[in-house]
Amino acid sequence: MLEYVSDAADPRLADYTGLRDVGLRKSLEAERGLFLAEGEKVIRRAVGAGYPVRSVLTTERWLPSLADVLGDALVYVVSDEIMTGVAGFPVHRGALASMERLPLPPVEEVLAGASRVVVLEDLVDHSNIGAIFRCAAALGVDAVVLSPRCADPLYRRSVKVSMGSVFSIPYARMGNWFDGLARLRELGFRSLALTPDQSATPLDQVKMGDRVALLLGSEGDGLSSRWLREADEAVCIPMSAQAMAAGVDSLNVVAAAAIACHGLMRA
Amino acid sequence: MLEYVSDAADPRLADYTGLRDVGLRKSLEAERGLFLAEGEKVIRRAVGAGYPVRSVLTTERWLPSLADVLGDALVYVVSDEIMTGVAGFPVHRGALASMERLPLPPVEEVLAGASRVVVLEDLVDHSNIGAIFRCAAALGVDAVVLSPRCADPLYRRSVKVSMGSVFSIPYARMGNWFDGLARLRELGFRSLALTPDQSATPLDQVKMGDRVALLLGSEGDGLSSRWLREADEAVCIPMSAQAMAAGVDSLNVVAAAAIACHGLMRA
Repeated sequence: MLEYVSDAADPRLADYTGLRDVGLRKSLEAERGLFLAEGEKVIRRAVGAGYPVRSVLTTERWLPSLADVLGDALVYVVSDEIMTGVAGFPVHRGALASMERLPLPPVEEVLAGASRVVVLEDLVDHSNIGAIFRCAAALGVDAVVLSPRCADPLYRRSVKVSMGSVFSIPYARMGNWFDGLARLRELGFRSLALTPDQSATPLDQVKMGDRVALLLGSEGDGLSSRWLREADEAVCIPMSAQAMAAGVDSLNVVAAAAIACHGLMRA
Repeated sequence: MLEYVSDAADPRLADYTGLRDVGLRKSLEAERGLFLAEGEKVIRRAVGAGYPVRSVLTTERWLPSLADVLGDALVYVVSDEIMTGVAGFPVHRGALASMERLPLPPVEEVLAGASRVVVLEDLVDHSNIGAIFRCAAALGVDAVVLSPRCADPLYRRSVKVSMGSVFSIPYARMGNWFDGLARLRELGFRSLALTPDQSATPLDQVKMGDRVALLLGSEGDGLSSRWLREADEAVCIPMSAQAMAAGVDSLNVVAAAAIACHGLMRA
């Protein structure tokens, strides 16, 4: 169903307001239980994953590429100027969809049939979350578990960087950080804590078992001392001694996560 | 030597003009044989690597953190407003240095003592170049070789993303793309072409030898058919069949490069 809107302040566009304002978006998306998908491919993946469409915001030009995926969804058609005005920036491939969130499954459900999982502790950067979901999905990780303080994988920036992988890989959020690892152990998972500490076991030498959880820490601080202590084994990516001596931050968090996820997938 | 400058149009600041304008910077940097380092840590690494300082642009506030590294370099001290005005954006940690380029060594020289090298074919994105240098340096790759059309590792954005790794890992640029791989072979290197094609040998199963060159292709197209054909072996990162079916771009180029560089470093 097409509705032509010619005023950026039209209340029908309220789901799309203030895209650049993280604070505003967080409260707005929480209140209304929505998230945004940007661009035809990502919208297609969200719809394919079963998220209901609240509405779509696009321009005349992009309608044809979306026609088959939208069905009878409510589509607001606007000019390029209004599109940019509402969003505050040029929208990737001229289409935004406001989608309904679905209830997150409990950790137990997400881990039920899983054998290789990634657990993120307090990752707060939306791009990093998206990039790690993308790696995990590409390499065949079965599920992702987030600590309570991790950023939202359905935030626009995460969704975009993940190329929609946040829709294809099951994930859950722990209710409780303190007992998080104990719960994983009860569910039969051995936990590997990734650390830059080069005295840890090189990841390639770890004997993987049936059910393995790879723990990745936050961008600045790495894993908490509690999780490092509670994990079954500390593992590292072997680094150049010269690079280590030259200072911190030798691998960025996404590169480290990519290498670690790849290592996790060994038989 | 401190000089206080109170006019953004002062000709003494000409090295720092138009930082956002890639075209302008390319011609300006080529003409004057310079590049820019941003922030105290990166400036420190550039100086440590032996690049001569033409001048430094900073504000009063950041002078103390730079004092020990600058020696008798020419330092232009400006207000925050002029700093932002000249750069066109807030400068990371308030300091820019204009450095003299040094002549690039020939490929032969860079490869002389090397056993693990990365060869980039036509990578044009400055951030990707920087990120790959950072990975390569962190993991202990001995050298990087660029095809003639690769972007400049000393461009500001590359330097920044690399965290200064472009200064620590030796690199050279091929004079000739067509015979590039033949030249590597003459120098005793076996070449591995990274491809998304899942019928290639999984990287972890490749028998590494004494001298191995890992070939990484451009962001969109991957390696050219000529290089794929001429390489000694095609190698792949095993991907989830589901992710492959879901479409292209399953791993971004930096994640793939990180995994591949890590694989390259096996004994």
